[in-house]
Amino acid sequence: MTRATPDNAGVRHGYIDDKARYEARLRRIEGQVRGLERMVQDEKYCIDILTQVSAVTSALRSVALGLLDDHMRHCVADAAAAGGEEAEAKIREASEAIARLIRS
Amino acid sequence: MTRATPDNAGVRHGYIDDKARYEARLRRIEGQVRGLERMVQDEKYCIDILTQVSAVTSALRSVALGLLDDHMRHCVADAAAAGGEEAEAKIREASEAIARLIRS
Amino acid sequence: MTRATPDNAGVRHGYIDDKARYEARLRRIEGQVRGLERMVQDEKYCIDILTQVSAVTSALRSVALGLLDDHMRHCVADAAAAGGEEAEAKIREASEAIARLIRS
Amino acid sequence: MTRATPDNAGVRHGYIDDKARYEARLRRIEGQVRGLERMVQDEKYCIDILTQVSAVTSALRSVALGLLDDHMRHCVADAAAAGGEEAEAKIREASEAIARLIRS
Repeated sequence: MTRATPDNAGVRHGYIDDKARYEARLRRIEGQVRGLERMVQDEKYCIDILTQVSAVTSALRSVALGLLDDHMRHCVADAAAAGGEEAEAKIREASEAIARLIRS
Repeated sequence: MTRATPDNAGVRHGYIDDKARYEARLRRIEGQVRGLERMVQDEKYCIDILTQVSAVTSALRSVALGLLDDHMRHCVADAAAAGGEEAEAKIREASEAIARLIRS
Repeated sequence: MTRATPDNAGVRHGYIDDKARYEARLRRIEGQVRGLERMVQDEKYCIDILTQVSAVTSALRSVALGLLDDHMRHCVADAAAAGGEEAEAKIREASEAIARLIRS
Repeated sequence: MTRATPDNAGVRHGYIDDKARYEARLRRIEGQVRGLERMVQDEKYCIDILTQVSAVTSALRSVALGLLDDHMRHCVADAAAAGGEEAEAKIREASEAIARLIRS
């Protein structure tokens, strides 16, 4: 994994406008995972647990696709507009993140 | 989705031996999701959040594959040994769960 | 990967009833891949090629889910009915195949 | 699906430098699919067919990731440098393609 940018020192990231919405979605996912824990604890039927795992995975994928879209719309687009090596690095970095998502 | 079995009335599910281990894994995943919430809150770099989402998705997939294996090793195997319609239903149900996992 | 069964010496596999249908589906997929080759040759728009790749991947996944279902319905069920080590091995083998599918 | 660009009238697409390499990879995938057809015809063991399906799916995913990277490196970067609505449309289009890939 290449890291095209140092830490977020003063940089406003693209997803910030939606920050509250992402936090809410992740809190809901956290609740779903806690629900999975309870299902195991209560020895629920395997298949029902698996259905719930699929739902959580889908919800996480959705969050990832949203973040990726925001990232491309802001960081990648800005870097591409500036051009040069930073643009190269940002796009390589995004491609690598997409590959990791697809394989996860 | 077909439901081959009523609720867990007195049935001991296959994953029970590993119950504590599954609970621990899910608690760790819950912690990872809370970590994602903090990353968004702290406006961490998108790509780093995406890397972490991929890690959580992989961890969930692993739990799902484990549960599925336990389920086949116990419920499906028992039903298959008994044969008849229940065996049919159990296998159809497992196939449907696998399809949902693959598409999630 | 564990191999629970030697080669198909005289064994009739579960998918055989649908053999012609599987062959037809795979021939269609082969045609779709040839279509992809032509798209690249004709320098079609990347996004259109990607859409077509997604379609082929989905078609392959469908074939895999069908084969897996047939396999469980026949080989795994038979082995489970017979019980013992062969049942163990068949289920482990199926679990491993599912894990490979999910990660591919 | 949004289509940000009319047909490839005179536009040189990003992947063109690698055109021969993509054609070769797709021809190899076509050969693998033909191999799958033969496996079904010869009634090979299900699990071995599934292993081969996973290999083909992986190879297709690799081609898709390569094309996507080329596309972002060229079309998306150029559009982003130009800015405005075309940039918006190109990034939306790429995001949608990524979503389709992840769900396929």
